[in-house]
Amino acid sequence: MPVGTFSALRPDITVGRQHTLAEQIVVLRLGHRIPRDLRVTTHVCLTARAFGADGLILADVVDTALEKTILDVCKRFGGSFWIRMGEPWRQAVKDWKSKGGEIAHLTAYGIPLPEAMEAINASPRPKLVVVGAEKVPGEVFEAANWNVAVTNQPISEVSALAMFLDRYFEGRQFSKEFENAQLRIIPSAHGKKVVNLTEPGG
Amino acid sequence: MPVGTFSALRPDITVGRQHTLAEQIVVLRLGHRIPRDLRVTTHVCLTARAFGADGLILADVVDTALEKTILDVCKRFGGSFWIRMGEPWRQAVKDWKSKGGEIAHLTAYGIPLPEAMEAINASPRPKLVVVGAEKVPGEVFEAANWNVAVTNQPISEVSALAMFLDRYFEGRQFSKEFENAQLRIIPSAHGKKVVNLTEPGG
Repeated sequence: MPVGTFSALRPDITVGRQHTLAEQIVVLRLGHRIPRDLRVTTHVCLTARAFGADGLILADVVDTALEKTILDVCKRFGGSFWIRMGEPWRQAVKDWKSKGGEIAHLTAYGIPLPEAMEAINASPRPKLVVVGAEKVPGEVFEAANWNVAVTNQPISEVSALAMFLDRYFEGRQFSKEFENAQLRIIPSAHGKKVVNLTEPGG
Repeated sequence: MPVGTFSALRPDITVGRQHTLAEQIVVLRLGHRIPRDLRVTTHVCLTARAFGADGLILADVVDTALEKTILDVCKRFGGSFWIRMGEPWRQAVKDWKSKGGEIAHLTAYGIPLPEAMEAINASPRPKLVVVGAEKVPGEVFEAANWNVAVTNQPISEVSALAMFLDRYFEGRQFSKEFENAQLRIIPSAHGKKVVNLTEPGG
């Protein structure tokens, strides 16, 4: 039975609905408020995509502006990152666990990342990485296999996610290729070089 | 002559004015718009602080709500991170260079971080790390000693800054101590443990 999610932009072809089991690392974004969190959650999504996560579940709400921004980046810069929205967080957590997946919740209250990562990397199961905006329900701390602190200081879910994925993938985000890109940035010492791959000779 | 900056909250005791030469790594935030960027710039500041930067210069504008939030975190969680605001960005860049400092600008168009970091770490000079919100003037690309890409993908200045500081300090943010803290989070597998250091026996 498919998970009860939907996309307001494309009700028939829910983004990512085909990925119910195969994903290896997915981000669950909690506590997103419209429009307050649009920019920060956009940064969460872009970081998740660039650093190698398979997709992101936006819990409880549907934010079509966010979806549009992320799908547009995916179209232009390629890759298979997906986003789905509106699924109640408890359901997402329950489904993930019932499929044998594990949960890492990023919180300043948790175990330091270098220590937690040893156990996390020792397990081959798919990972759901939970990132909240402001207060997160106590249930999440209980449901998580690991509560992971990217420093025990107040930081940002964006930088916490970046560090988690960096350590999880051991820096491989720097050599990641994105298939079917329309645009590719060419590294440049001073300036902007972008190749349009859809143009002849591009 | 002191740099022409000021703090709207404390006009006489400008935050960080005493640090004009000694700082080793300072973040320059460009293009901040009030109130649109309050949350993202807060994340930039908190990441800068937790990951070991000395302070942050908010270019061109004064945002008292931002300053209040950051000073409050600094008071509660300790450390000597400072923030100053309102300095024109060209002046900040010029002053930094005239004092012998170097500039790293974080941009998706730059040289990949692992490659750039070799040269950056080989130089002992103080570093100004420039992070923009959306479009950054071409002059910044020219003024920078290094344009550094934390992946050549659209990401977030928050995660870019985290990765830059992580590589610059080689992960030492995980063992950084913050002096004069009122609160300290004790790492916990499941739950929240916070010690109030201002209470007797705390």
